[in-house]
Amino acid sequence: MATWATGIRAVLLDVSGVLYDSGGDAGGTAIQGSVEAVNRIRQSGLKLRFCTNESQATRSQFVRKLRGYGFNISEEEVTAPGPAVTRMLKERGLRPHLLVHDDLLPEFDSVDTSEPNCVVIGDAAENFSYQNLNKAFQVLLSLENPILISLGKGRYYKETDGLMLDVGAYMKALEYACDVTAEVVGKPSQQFFFSALQEMGVKPEEAVMIGDDIVNDIGGAQSCGIRAVLVRTGKYRLSDEHHAEVTADGYVDNLAQAIDILLSSVASDP
Amino acid sequence: MATWATGIRAVLLDVSGVLYDSGGDAGGTAIQGSVEAVNRIRQSGLKLRFCTNESQATRSQFVRKLRGYGFNISEEEVTAPGPAVTRMLKERGLRPHLLVHDDLLPEFDSVDTSEPNCVVIGDAAENFSYQNLNKAFQVLLSLENPILISLGKGRYYKETDGLMLDVGAYMKALEYACDVTAEVVGKPSQQFFFSALQEMGVKPEEAVMIGDDIVNDIGGAQSCGIRAVLVRTGKYRLSDEHHAEVTADGYVDNLAQAIDILLSSVASDP
Repeated sequence: MATWATGIRAVLLDVSGVLYDSGGDAGGTAIQGSVEAVNRIRQSGLKLRFCTNESQATRSQFVRKLRGYGFNISEEEVTAPGPAVTRMLKERGLRPHLLVHDDLLPEFDSVDTSEPNCVVIGDAAENFSYQNLNKAFQVLLSLENPILISLGKGRYYKETDGLMLDVGAYMKALEYACDVTAEVVGKPSQQFFFSALQEMGVKPEEAVMIGDDIVNDIGGAQSCGIRAVLVRTGKYRLSDEHHAEVTADGYVDNLAQAIDILLSSVASDP
Repeated sequence: MATWATGIRAVLLDVSGVLYDSGGDAGGTAIQGSVEAVNRIRQSGLKLRFCTNESQATRSQFVRKLRGYGFNISEEEVTAPGPAVTRMLKERGLRPHLLVHDDLLPEFDSVDTSEPNCVVIGDAAENFSYQNLNKAFQVLLSLENPILISLGKGRYYKETDGLMLDVGAYMKALEYACDVTAEVVGKPSQQFFFSALQEMGVKPEEAVMIGDDIVNDIGGAQSCGIRAVLVRTGKYRLSDEHHAEVTADGYVDNLAQAIDILLSSVASDP
């Protein structure tokens, strides 16, 4: 029996690359067996939370899309960087210059963006033009105390037609150009994982994270004491199983297999 | 008398920010006193070479533009990354995927770009779209041995209407996304400076570099044993005089002042 599956009371699921592959404007596709796997987690009585760095849409749009693929999921179950960063901006009196996806903008409706004193970047995709990145750079360089906030720091993600650059690459570009270190809201930040655990009311050692990103999902969860399992779907590449810094607690072909293993462990728990 | 000016036989001049400020499509402007300063270097009998990371145009176009501003300069006097990289690609049998400015493309006319086995990036400006950077990323990630070559690694440069992101920011984005380290052709690479010295037939201690980039001009030259003076024009910012890692051998208001100091030193040399 897999050690990672013993004593688990709660499941944290990454979304893109675990539940579905995104597909840009063309739409994406659910990963085989994932819709049923989510239903089986619910039926088992395990606690469940979706922990995503998705920043190409508001949380409500994102949930609507997943329901369209057949997933049983509600907005309140999703920990996402958009709502987390708007809370943070208000708490700290920060007024962002936004370099984000158009579809994420409504998340900032209640945030003051006049006379920016920080820059927030998300997975802006096509909005990462030279002109837009240059504008964000100029705002940062004009600040006496430049603050760069990045919604995740992923290197790339998978769309149905190939791997695509993620926000982390652009975060590094701005960090280098402005000689600053970004604050990351989202995985692998510990605060993000602890917030998800708190909403489920479980301890780190009672939870397992299932994701396709060896650094941000697996490494991030493990840094909080959460066990973590890598799926061989989404952006997974064979080299991830020999990563220099991160070793997952388990490797599975896909979410369905992870849930098979987990539920047989739960069934045999004393 | 300034120590940096004694025993000098050759002058290496950075171009953008020292001779002129570039201005995108709107054209740029010569920096006051620089046209005369170049003429005075020539009249003094000091050796002279232009050492630039300019990669928005072929060397011949670049020289034509500078002549338009009134500078006395010929193509053979310019050390630039375009010609250097084409030599290197041929020597190593590399076939580049190019992410460069449209106007630099003719520099690669004699280079095989079929079935790329490396990526070359330059200061591509508006060509740094999400789509183009993503394509370069995908090519790199598809290579068993990914080779990324960057024409310089500047953080930003000055145009007449503000500071603009330079190739270094995009180099960092690709380095992070693909987990590679770029090879830099251009300043601050030692090979680039040594090649300029060799063409003048002088030793490092006989030359002075004059530039506006504290890291790439000043730090790069000093790493070769060349004295280096920072001008307060171009991308210069006050904080450059308190840089954590690099201290220039001298700081001057502009090229004209540097040449005043240098020529009075030469006149009083025994």
